[in-house]
This record gives sequence, structure tokens and C-alpha cells, in this order.
Amino acid sequence: MSTEQELKLFYDTLSELYRLECIAALLGWDQQVYMPANAAKGRAGQAEYIARLLHQKMTDPKFAQTVDHLYEQIDTLSDADRVNVREIKRMLDIQRKLPEDFVSEMTRVETMAYSEWVKARRANDFDAIKPLLKKLVELCRKKCDLIGYKEHPYDALLDLYDPGSTLSFVKPLLLNLAGQLRDIIPPISKNFEAQKPLCGRYDISVQDKLCRRVAQDMGFDFQSGRFDTTPHPFMTTIGPSDLRITTRYDESDFIFSLYSTIHETGHALYEQGLPTEWAGTPMGSAVSLSIHESQSRMWENLIGRSKAFCIYLSKVVKEFFPDESMDADKLWNVVNRVGPSLIRTEADEVTYSQHIVIRMLLEEQLITGELTVSDLPGAWNDMYENYLGIRPTDYKDGVMQDVHWYSGSIGYFPTYALGNLYNAMMMEAAKTDMPDMADKIERGEFGDMLDWLRGKVHKRGMQLRGRELIRDITGRDLSAQPFVDYLKRKFLAE
Amino acid sequence: MSTEQELKLFYDTLSELYRLECIAALLGWDQQVYMPANAAKGRAGQAEYIARLLHQKMTDPKFAQTVDHLYEQIDTLSDADRVNVREIKRMLDIQRKLPEDFVSEMTRVETMAYSEWVKARRANDFDAIKPLLKKLVELCRKKCDLIGYKEHPYDALLDLYDPGSTLSFVKPLLLNLAGQLRDIIPPISKNFEAQKPLCGRYDISVQDKLCRRVAQDMGFDFQSGRFDTTPHPFMTTIGPSDLRITTRYDESDFIFSLYSTIHETGHALYEQGLPTEWAGTPMGSAVSLSIHESQSRMWENLIGRSKAFCIYLSKVVKEFFPDESMDADKLWNVVNRVGPSLIRTEADEVTYSQHIVIRMLLEEQLITGELTVSDLPGAWNDMYENYLGIRPTDYKDGVMQDVHWYSGSIGYFPTYALGNLYNAMMMEAAKTDMPDMADKIERGEFGDMLDWLRGKVHKRGMQLRGRELIRDITGRDLSAQPFVDYLKRKFLAE
Repeated sequence: MSTEQELKLFYDTLSELYRLECIAALLGWDQQVYMPANAAKGRAGQAEYIARLLHQKMTDPKFAQTVDHLYEQIDTLSDADRVNVREIKRMLDIQRKLPEDFVSEMTRVETMAYSEWVKARRANDFDAIKPLLKKLVELCRKKCDLIGYKEHPYDALLDLYDPGSTLSFVKPLLLNLAGQLRDIIPPISKNFEAQKPLCGRYDISVQDKLCRRVAQDMGFDFQSGRFDTTPHPFMTTIGPSDLRITTRYDESDFIFSLYSTIHETGHALYEQGLPTEWAGTPMGSAVSLSIHESQSRMWENLIGRSKAFCIYLSKVVKEFFPDESMDADKLWNVVNRVGPSLIRTEADEVTYSQHIVIRMLLEEQLITGELTVSDLPGAWNDMYENYLGIRPTDYKDGVMQDVHWYSGSIGYFPTYALGNLYNAMMMEAAKTDMPDMADKIERGEFGDMLDWLRGKVHKRGMQLRGRELIRDITGRDLSAQPFVDYLKRKFLAE
Repeated sequence: MSTEQELKLFYDTLSELYRLECIAALLGWDQQVYMPANAAKGRAGQAEYIARLLHQKMTDPKFAQTVDHLYEQIDTLSDADRVNVREIKRMLDIQRKLPEDFVSEMTRVETMAYSEWVKARRANDFDAIKPLLKKLVELCRKKCDLIGYKEHPYDALLDLYDPGSTLSFVKPLLLNLAGQLRDIIPPISKNFEAQKPLCGRYDISVQDKLCRRVAQDMGFDFQSGRFDTTPHPFMTTIGPSDLRITTRYDESDFIFSLYSTIHETGHALYEQGLPTEWAGTPMGSAVSLSIHESQSRMWENLIGRSKAFCIYLSKVVKEFFPDESMDADKLWNVVNRVGPSLIRTEADEVTYSQHIVIRMLLEEQLITGELTVSDLPGAWNDMYENYLGIRPTDYKDGVMQDVHWYSGSIGYFPTYALGNLYNAMMMEAAKTDMPDMADKIERGEFGDMLDWLRGKVHKRGMQLRGRELIRDITGRDLSAQPFVDYLKRKFLAE
């Protein structure tokens, strides 16, 4: 085959894989959002079938050989082809190490476990989910061995979500962060002691309208996406023009649904900003989950919890809840309230990373085998006491709060904290480039900010790895300092 | 291969095909219920991909050879295997005649056309959808030629939805029906002249609760199914325990959503009653769309619009709409109001079949080429004048009202009228078997009726063809007379 023919086969296969990925995403979305309870077993079979097919297509000898051959001549390819071949080669090398039966077993167990977790969590019953969680940890450990690693088995998983990351890089970085946070959490929390969370009555259908309005102002395109309700908010991509956000509502407090929406909209704007002409290829894909998280948390925190945004938001809230008499300052205090808490997704931006560090340390121990699933709830509670000074009193708000482990995603959590570090560095650069940004945000004009992110991050697909990207944007290496400095400036006026 | 090995390959392939069918059903359901507008193109690609795969798997030489070989020795197989091999052989013989490229083109055009129809119908713009409709008619005509037929090209399509049916059987049967209806429509309509449709204000969320309550009373299992809202109500099976019903609401009239729900629940009860141990095989599948329709229309009309049901329903309505003061007699008059109307799905049980006859005659002409798509709206309006004495004044309530043609389903409509004929015959038999049935229905006890249908129809899967089934149940051949007699008894006290 000529290089041209090889590239044709390469891109034809990518578009086939992309269709299958979209179908897999729809099966997953539907399961989490609308599927009736008794359908879980059938769905597990369907998801397993597509996962197996994806794996077969990806590791098909003819395709694999083509990728290997294109990779050998990568320097002769165009810039875009080079990125695509490099990244697909990386994914293929991982997939090739995973036998088809392993992939389909993993998918089936993940799908079953998700449904069991929903039930078990509702019943606060860790024992009910323990066998499946054990099985998943076992499968994840096997996955590490199958994929292989240089230094630490956990690296095999980390690398899936944040290509190129290793525990030897991430752990010191996040422990350094955790140490600095430990010092600033008490003085900052003290400032918010008098600040109570909202406790009104906010009609859920009005909250929904408010969320849609803010998402629209941010730039979300409802012709190419939609909103739904789930116990665990998420964003998923079902196709090039099909981005689905979920949130959950609390009638007594509209802040939760709103900021969860802003977060997920941040993810969706990244996806909507990827070059559509490259949809389904690495050139049209997000860099990593860490960079994805940098986008969602940029909107949720650095923009969304800024003074300027609160000025904009206080006006919008007034439109939807006319009885609510919060000016921008009061709103700022409500949305920024800092203090140790049990639930990660409801944590403020100062304590949030501690939740992640706890999970990373537990994951490390689960993967090495130092910690068993039976001992996990106790270890979880000890960690919370150690890092946040509070102890969960049930499983629901403790070890069972997050879906990740119960859907087979170990190694995913660190990307949330890395996202915090990335977005603080990006924001510094954005402020230098656009000195009048705060004024625009005050007026609800988010176009410049979005364009900046599109140019610096979205439009570039996977051209650069995360750490290369941040060096390219800021001229500096990834570190915890800019984020800690940002928190100190914001909350301690340092 | 031994017969045992052949049967293993046979059933393994059926279960693979079933997974793909469920995935295709989810793609379709999502498109109609939740998918954002701009995702249509991506979805067409996904649906096409699965359709192609289904076709490949179905016509895979090894599988096809196995089916052929099993069919040769069909007399040596067990009863259940015999049914499954016979029906799969029939489907395979059809699929083999359709080239893969044809199947995928058909699916892609159907998926695109559905989305365009939604938009064009809203805008009452027939010209906008004309090119795609032309294309679909062309593809259907090609399909007839590819599948082949003995007497009439239309038979090739009819047979897809009602195995064994031919125009030479169905057309005289339905024209005979239409002729008899033409005589009784005027005197019956006269009795309802003073009867106005409901025009109140019925909160949609309360209507939704009412619909769920009635479906639950009928026996619908919400752990194995769900309800949603669409412009065109339907029921679809996404898996063995995943039956999805949709309805649409009119705030001024709760009857429409309620009876549409009863209809779709009738379909779902059939699916929920099929033997789950045979899921994904003909032994666990519905006989035909005609028999499916006999179940939905049995619940909607013969049960749902009976005096006994109105006694039950008037009490339930009172629970949900306490201000509504309709006794059973008044309710009976409201839900039974007869009179010519433009919209098929809103037609009463007397005039309904005329809508079908019109469509059947137009389909016949479209397939033979006597009628062009450009002339279709005029021909439609003339037919309405001829059969119902009224003339549509726009496309929305005329030729564009139904999704079927715009999603490539020509030959489907006759099954609705055949369902009417089947259910009248079934009801006669049921009444003979259960003389106290009306008393039970009055009390909202539907268990006996459902059990009867399960035993006589649901549990038997595809063991018998529709016409064999009705002969088995009633000892008589399918004819229009029992249905016409039922209407005369009910509405003219004859």
C-alpha cells in the first residue's frame, strides 16, 4: 500500500471507531439518565458487545500494521497526520496489551456495578456493592499488569486519563499542594464561619431555566446539546454535535445545580470548540482529562466564583427569583463559602483538592494491594479526619459518594486536582492578554474569554500534551504555586 | 458440524443480532425523544453503521449456510427450534436479497428524513421534505424488486410487517370493511353531533400521573419500562426488560394522552408477556405488526372505550382531577365521540379504518408508479373527501401527519386496520371464556383479561402466523364481519 492508501485506511477506521464510541457513549448516557432498573443486565450485554467490537476494530491486524507502518515514517507526514498517528499508535499499543475477553469482562462488570452502586448507595449499603467493587479493583490491578509500567503499577492507569503522567510526578506535586492547603484552610474557613448555605425554596423548574440561561450566556449551543437530571452530574459526547450535560437539583439551594451546570458547561464548551473537521481523530479530541477539567473548573471557579461573575449573576438571579435579594457581595460570599465538608462535588475550591489527594492515596494502596476493599471504608474515614478534620458517619456520604470506582475508573481522580493547577496558570495568562476581562464578565460578555480558550486550548486538539500545552501558553512548567497564590490572593488578600 | 453445533452457532448469532437490534432501537428512540437537532447527521451515520452490521451478521455465509442446513432438516428439530429456524430462514431469505449498500443507504436516508420531516411538518412545508420522500419511495420500489413478489410489488413490503399477507387478500378485505363503514359512519356520527370534545385546563404533570396510574392498573411494569413525551407517540423495545412508551399532551384535553397511553401500553403488555427465556428469537417475538396492533387496539378500544372501563375510569379521573364532574355515561360519550376527522391518531374507532384504507390505496399507487410524490398531496385530499367527506386545508393535518412514509415505512399502515379485525374476533372469544369480564373491568381488575391474552397470544411468540392464530383462538377465518358487527352493536344497538 502507498502512504496515501494507508492514510485512507487509517482515517476510515478512525471514523468507524468514532461511530462505535458515540454509540457506546449513548448506551452509557441512557443507562445513567433514563434506563429502567430491570434493563441493567441487557444493557451490560449491549455495552460489552460494543466494547468488544471497538477493541476488535482497534486491534485488527491490518489496521494495527498500518498504524505501525505509518508511525515508522511519521516524520514524513503532515503536521495533522503526525499528531493523529502518534496518538493512535499510543492508544493502539495500550489496546493491544488488553485481550478481548478482558475488555469485555471489564465492560460488563462496570455496567452491572454502576446499577448496583445506584441502589446500594441509596440504601447506604456498602456490603451490597463490596463483591463487585472487589472484582473491579482486581480487574484494574490486572489491567496494570497487562498494560505494563516502568515505575509503579498505578502509572498504567494514570496514563489512561492523563497521557504521560506518572505517580512519581503527580504524587509529590499533589502532596505539596495538600501541605500548603492544610495551612490556609483554617484561616480561610474562619472567615466564612458566619456564612450559612442557602436555605430557601427555589422551584426546580425555575432553577432549570436559570441554569439554561447561564449556559447559553456562556456560549452553550442547545441545538447541539441538551440538559438532563441525574444523581451524579456529568457531561458526555454522543457525537460531533451532541453534547449532553446532566445536573441535579436541591430545592432549598439553587447554587448547587447552577455551579454544577457551569462546571459541565465548561466541559461542553471545550468539546464544542474542538475542530469539527477533525471529529473522531486526536486532532479533534481533548488533550487529557486534566485539561478537560481545567476548562470546567476555569468556568466554575476562576470565572464563576469571581467578583465580576457575581455582579453578572446577581442580576440574572433576580430575573428568575425576584424575591431573592442578594447583591453581588452577598452572592460572592454564598458561592465562595469555604470549609471542610464530606462531599467532593459540593466542596469549595480551597478544600476540593484535599478530596482528590485522599482518593489518590487510597487508589495507590488499592492498586499495590496494601489496602483491601473491606478495609477501604475505615481508611477513607481516617483520611478525611487527617486531611479535612471531619469524619463521615455513613457510607453514602463517605466511600460510596462517587461513581468512579464503581464504574471501574481508578486513576481518574488526580485529573481533577491537576485541572485546578492548570486553570490557575491559564487564568494568569488570560488576564495578561485581556486586561479588561473582568469588566466584560461583569456584563455577562463571555465571548472574549471563550475565544481565548478556543485559540489557546480547544482548537488545538491533541497537538500538545498537557504539560507541553501549559508551557506553550504560559512559558512556565506545571506547578502548584500559581493555584495556591491565586487562593491566597483571593481569600487572604495576600 | 453436528446439528447440536449448528444450533449453538444459530442461537449465538441470534443473541448477537438481538443485541444489535436493541442498540438500533435505542439510537432510534433517542433520536425521536431527546437527541438535539444538529446531531441528526451524526446519528444517521451511527444508525447506518449498526444497520450494516446487522445485515452483515445476518447474511454472514457461515450463519446463512447453517440456517439453510437446519431448515433442510427442520422436521427433526424440537417444536421451539422448528419455529425459530422457520422464521429466521424467512428473514434471512429477505435479507439476502438486499445488498449491504442498499440497506445502509436506506437506513441513512430514513434517519435523515425523520429529522427533516419533524422540521418540515412544523413549518407545514411539504416542498422541503419532497426530495427526501421521493428518494424514499424510490428506495421502497427498489426494495420490492430486490425482495421479489409473486403477484404485486406491494406484497414484498406488506409481507415485512404482516408475514404472509398479500394485496390480493388485504385489499378486498379492507375495501369490504370500508364499504360497510361508509354506510354506518353517518348514522353513528349523527348521535354524537351534540357531543363536544373536552376543553378544560388539565395540568400536564397531573395528566402524566393519571396516564401512569392507568398503565400500572393495566399491568405495565415501570421497573422494566418508562414513559416519555414525543410529537408522535410510539412504543419501542430496547431490551428484554426495557419497554419505552411515549405520548403527547394537550392541556385542554386529557383524553388524548390517556388513550394514546392505553394504546401504547397495550403494545408494551404484549412485549412484556412474550416468553423472556426466548428473548431475541422468534419464539420470544411478536407474530406480526397486525397482531401487535390487535393488542394495542384491544386495550384502547374494545376494553378502553367500553361502558365497564368508563365506570372504572370515571373514578380514577376523579382522583386526579377532582373538579372534573364526569360520570361514567358522560365519559363514555366523550371517549366514544364518532365523526369524520383529519388526523388518524385522533380518529374514533369507527372512522379510523378509513384513514388506513386511504393510505393503503395511495401506497399501492406510489409503489406501482401510478402516483408521483408531487401529486401525492392532491390525491390525499381527494381520498379524504371521498372516504370521509372532509378535505385537509394544510399539509400538516394532511399528507404530512404521519411519520411512517418519512421514515421509509410503506406497507405498514394496513396492519392497523387488520389489528381492528383481529381484536374484534379475539374479544368475542374472550367474552365467551370469561362471562364476568365486564364486572372485573368496572372494578379496574384487568388481571384476568391480561392473563387470557398472555395465554392465547403473548406466550406463544411466533409459533403461529396471524391468520393461523385467530383460527386457533376462534375457530374462524379472519374477516371484517365481527368488527363491523361489534360497531353496530355498540353504536347502533343492533
